[in-house]
Amino acid sequence: MSNARVVSTSLGFERPLVTVDVVIFTVIDEQLCVLLVRRPDGEQEPFPGRWALPGGFVDVNKDVSLQACAERKLMAKTGVASPYLEQLGSWGDAKRDPRGWSCTHAYFALIGQPASIVDGDAPAEWLPCDLAVRRRLAFDHSSLLTAAIERLRSKVEYTSLPAFLLPEPFTLPQLQRVYEVVLGRALDKSAFRKRMLDADYLEEAGPVTGDHGRPAMGYRLRERERATVFPRGFKSGE
Amino acid sequence: MSNARVVSTSLGFERPLVTVDVVIFTVIDEQLCVLLVRRPDGEQEPFPGRWALPGGFVDVNKDVSLQACAERKLMAKTGVASPYLEQLGSWGDAKRDPRGWSCTHAYFALIGQPASIVDGDAPAEWLPCDLAVRRRLAFDHSSLLTAAIERLRSKVEYTSLPAFLLPEPFTLPQLQRVYEVVLGRALDKSAFRKRMLDADYLEEAGPVTGDHGRPAMGYRLRERERATVFPRGFKSGE
Repeated sequence: MSNARVVSTSLGFERPLVTVDVVIFTVIDEQLCVLLVRRPDGEQEPFPGRWALPGGFVDVNKDVSLQACAERKLMAKTGVASPYLEQLGSWGDAKRDPRGWSCTHAYFALIGQPASIVDGDAPAEWLPCDLAVRRRLAFDHSSLLTAAIERLRSKVEYTSLPAFLLPEPFTLPQLQRVYEVVLGRALDKSAFRKRMLDADYLEEAGPVTGDHGRPAMGYRLRERERATVFPRGFKSGE
Repeated sequence: MSNARVVSTSLGFERPLVTVDVVIFTVIDEQLCVLLVRRPDGEQEPFPGRWALPGGFVDVNKDVSLQACAERKLMAKTGVASPYLEQLGSWGDAKRDPRGWSCTHAYFALIGQPASIVDGDAPAEWLPCDLAVRRRLAFDHSSLLTAAIERLRSKVEYTSLPAFLLPEPFTLPQLQRVYEVVLGRALDKSAFRKRMLDADYLEEAGPVTGDHGRPAMGYRLRERERATVFPRGFKSGE
């Protein structure tokens, strides 16, 4: 570790490495999936060739904040600019990175259009979460992934979050299937429809082609849902 | 900022400053209070003389993790070793600290015995939260404090958290007053007693002297409550 030591010229102590990692969820073929990237090979690299969450060092010259850094990494991997992005927590200790004391700031993102937008400087793949949690990921990324899945599931019951996992407009049956995918169990159709409309998360977006090619009402999230789902105190610039 | 620049000898980029701050709550005279410390004076100091949350730099030679760093700072200020300590979130950007790009990791702690245990290398005081949120604290600490109060209040309804704000053993009326102090409203006595006993958070600790000098049953938190209140994924060493 001594070759990774850092000395400040004015504040005389070693500084930890500071990174951001993003757990990016979407739904593909009715499965909750997460984006994984393969670590580069090479003797100098930590965890060479292992799968990991996308992320990397904060660039103090590029990133105005931790949140901005997460947005940059999300954009680089998915091309998506402003989906749902929430801070999950920090993991920092002396041993999680062989290069030295490091802390990472994990965010989780929900996106609705995964198919063609992964661009790759490193090999990347969407993997069903069921499989991803059984892989031995680099660093402590398996813990981060588990925490992110728990956070997402704990919020599904009382928020509009799953709607961020769908391209808009969507039908109510499509939205119900996404709730069911995240929760891992079936929901009653009429109770779901009533709950969604009572909660007033959605607005009508005109007729679309629904299941079996039949016309159905399309919906999208109301603007205020996009504005309010971010927890207070965690947005950049507050 | 140029005199605070940091260059790694092996990883060629500038590293952010990394700090931990702790929002330490207790109840004094039936008011929810927070511990504030006064920043040192001096031209080189950021926010000289201003009140702030206790905290400071991660010491990579002393602290095995962010959580351990928070425990160290809590112990230094209060003498308390292992109360409730939960990660609140991270605030990191280019402007929050005049010394350079910095990220802080905020924790909140609940302690039950504030009276005589603040030891002072810096002036410190317990201030009612109502007053503390109106002070212009150093850095972005007013935002951290507001977020911590919101988090605590949001968890009161469905957890045993307020019990950590009382020295043990306590009576049910004493515990009810602490719930009322945190929530800011009165609770029905018989409903509160039923809810506490149904939730099975507490165990009997033998008779104590209750209100008006009369004997009453004393209670303390069950061991498993201490073990389970920490959210998963945020403890050191996980």
